[in-house]
Amino acid sequence: MDNSKFRVAVIGIGLTKFGEHWEKGLRNLAIEAGVNAVTDAKIEGKEIDAMYIGNMASGRLTGQEHLGALVADQIGMNIPATRVEAACASGGLALRQGLLSILSGQHNVVLVGGAEKMTDMSVDQVTTTLMGAADEEWEGFQGLTFPGLYALMARRHMHDYGTRREHLAMISVKNHEHASMNPIAQFQNKITVDQVLKSTMVADPLTLLDCSPVSDGAAALILCREDIAKKYTDNPVYIVGSGQASDTLALAQRKSLTRLDATIMASRAAYKQAGVAPKDINVVEVHDCFTIAELMAVEDLGFAEKGKGGKFIEEGNTKLGGKIPFNTSGGLKACGHPVGATGIKQACEVVMQLRGEAGARQVKGAEIGMTHNVGGSGATAVVHVFKK
Amino acid sequence: MDNSKFRVAVIGIGLTKFGEHWEKGLRNLAIEAGVNAVTDAKIEGKEIDAMYIGNMASGRLTGQEHLGALVADQIGMNIPATRVEAACASGGLALRQGLLSILSGQHNVVLVGGAEKMTDMSVDQVTTTLMGAADEEWEGFQGLTFPGLYALMARRHMHDYGTRREHLAMISVKNHEHASMNPIAQFQNKITVDQVLKSTMVADPLTLLDCSPVSDGAAALILCREDIAKKYTDNPVYIVGSGQASDTLALAQRKSLTRLDATIMASRAAYKQAGVAPKDINVVEVHDCFTIAELMAVEDLGFAEKGKGGKFIEEGNTKLGGKIPFNTSGGLKACGHPVGATGIKQACEVVMQLRGEAGARQVKGAEIGMTHNVGGSGATAVVHVFKK
Repeated sequence: MDNSKFRVAVIGIGLTKFGEHWEKGLRNLAIEAGVNAVTDAKIEGKEIDAMYIGNMASGRLTGQEHLGALVADQIGMNIPATRVEAACASGGLALRQGLLSILSGQHNVVLVGGAEKMTDMSVDQVTTTLMGAADEEWEGFQGLTFPGLYALMARRHMHDYGTRREHLAMISVKNHEHASMNPIAQFQNKITVDQVLKSTMVADPLTLLDCSPVSDGAAALILCREDIAKKYTDNPVYIVGSGQASDTLALAQRKSLTRLDATIMASRAAYKQAGVAPKDINVVEVHDCFTIAELMAVEDLGFAEKGKGGKFIEEGNTKLGGKIPFNTSGGLKACGHPVGATGIKQACEVVMQLRGEAGARQVKGAEIGMTHNVGGSGATAVVHVFKK
Repeated sequence: MDNSKFRVAVIGIGLTKFGEHWEKGLRNLAIEAGVNAVTDAKIEGKEIDAMYIGNMASGRLTGQEHLGALVADQIGMNIPATRVEAACASGGLALRQGLLSILSGQHNVVLVGGAEKMTDMSVDQVTTTLMGAADEEWEGFQGLTFPGLYALMARRHMHDYGTRREHLAMISVKNHEHASMNPIAQFQNKITVDQVLKSTMVADPLTLLDCSPVSDGAAALILCREDIAKKYTDNPVYIVGSGQASDTLALAQRKSLTRLDATIMASRAAYKQAGVAPKDINVVEVHDCFTIAELMAVEDLGFAEKGKGGKFIEEGNTKLGGKIPFNTSGGLKACGHPVGATGIKQACEVVMQLRGEAGARQVKGAEIGMTHNVGGSGATAVVHVFKK
């Protein structure tokens, strides 16, 4: 990889509320987020050259594939519109494709979005559909589910490093606390460690409150060439690093159950490109589909040594006000996880933080932020670094 | 759109046979095509920086999403691997993303592939799944199928321009003739106009022999930066134009039933970028999912005036040996249409033609070629121009 340095500007962000939108379809949600982003960027639709949309499973969840064209259709534009899919990392990869398309010199202003409509299906249908993100032949067909996969990782982490059940619960408690300050969050209620421990068991050791929910929602960003950003805003945020890596689909094929190598590789590439290290990051949105995933991210992204994630969390480092706030949005756990939207929502949150527009959950003086989006049980990871 | 001029090299091509591969799964097919392309390019796997894979509906057809990671996993590489979906234009858009990623300066050598495994499902399941490419809410849910959509276009073209049923049949006859010279084609048998007219009615006026089949197959290309292409081959082919456009998902929303505006826009963008006109093109692979689609492509791509496509075909212009041979591979109709693979197969065929390696179906002296890949009933179109 050439890994040339670059800066691409984010000049607009748009979100829908995350949650159960029984009165809205996929196209309504996608348009709402897109219109919000265009409004925020104060641009006209005709200035947009292309669109990328991240979505995991609308084919199975709603019958509709071809979402790029769907969105172009809804906004009445004939521009190139492309769907990108990498399971739960679909949003992060859509962002990356939009970024590459600007760096290619072919596009000046690009809308990148993510959307997922999940609550029209029963929970067992959604659970089966989500297993399409893992190895369908060697895991899904054998009866494994996503809570099961992450439970295996949690058990091994507890066995190898003495990580305690309570460490995992603290992550959920912290993310609910953050979400209580986020008006778009699906769950804005605070919870306690005791409540997490006593909630319904899903896959031992993970209880219901360790698991991100089934959600509807959409998010969008307007990207543009660095040299024209000031035309649109006095307050652009720049993407300065992008790393993507792959790993085996099936968990059993991995070298370790207690780390995600794709996260390690993607983050190292992004750090290098951005010229920063973990100590430079002021705010980070990570992929906490299950609490153990955030604990591993703390370690894999380089904020704590391998095995010391639990202690790092227990010390309060990842809370708002701590050394490096994780998931000020509430994360996937409490803000919600409309799969294709998640990677873009993470970017919206970091942009809000760097603009100083995050309200009660503002990280004071945040200048450098990061997003970390994972597909499946770690077969895809994509990391972006943002600077004011 | 900035529409900067560029050249990106194709240094390797790989194909599987198209047809019913009951003994091979999606991952086998994808790997076979990828290995063939790597072998053809005489590169080592570790020289590849990234992968893009076009696939429409593996989630619904096989339960497996997340195909980028699947392919990276199968070849044992941790590089960025991204699935792109735009219905039947998934392959063409994967090619475009690979190309943009090279132009971005982030990647030097990129594998782009397309694969679809369709024959494990019943025909009615495949037909329902394919309607995810059209407007599921306003067309699929109402009972329309793809043969039905294209039959509406055919009827209107016949009504407005006096196009005859036989004109459509001639396209199928010509594509079977071409496929008889293509060892990877699904149908290598020659047929007659009379056979087309008398075959089973699918959606009036389209009979079974007007329709592309349900197929399994995969195709792959190795792309690289122009300035390093000669390191790998003495005979590179260059992509010099890429156009993509969108239109409404639903047919009823279009300005006209007898043309695809997305094809018109995408081809004009590609011609302009490549600095060529239709008269300069020596060989073209077009999206003949149904015979009427090829007839419209003859007109929409600018080879014949609107309404004169039938006459142009009847005069033999689109046959091998004619003014501008269409679909020397046999097209979707006779070479087969594994949806996600089609756009990449088209590129492989044009590269073979420009290299002078197309055997019995070689277009003599071919120097400039073009591919035209359509998603849905025309909601996405992508056109690429190739030069020796």
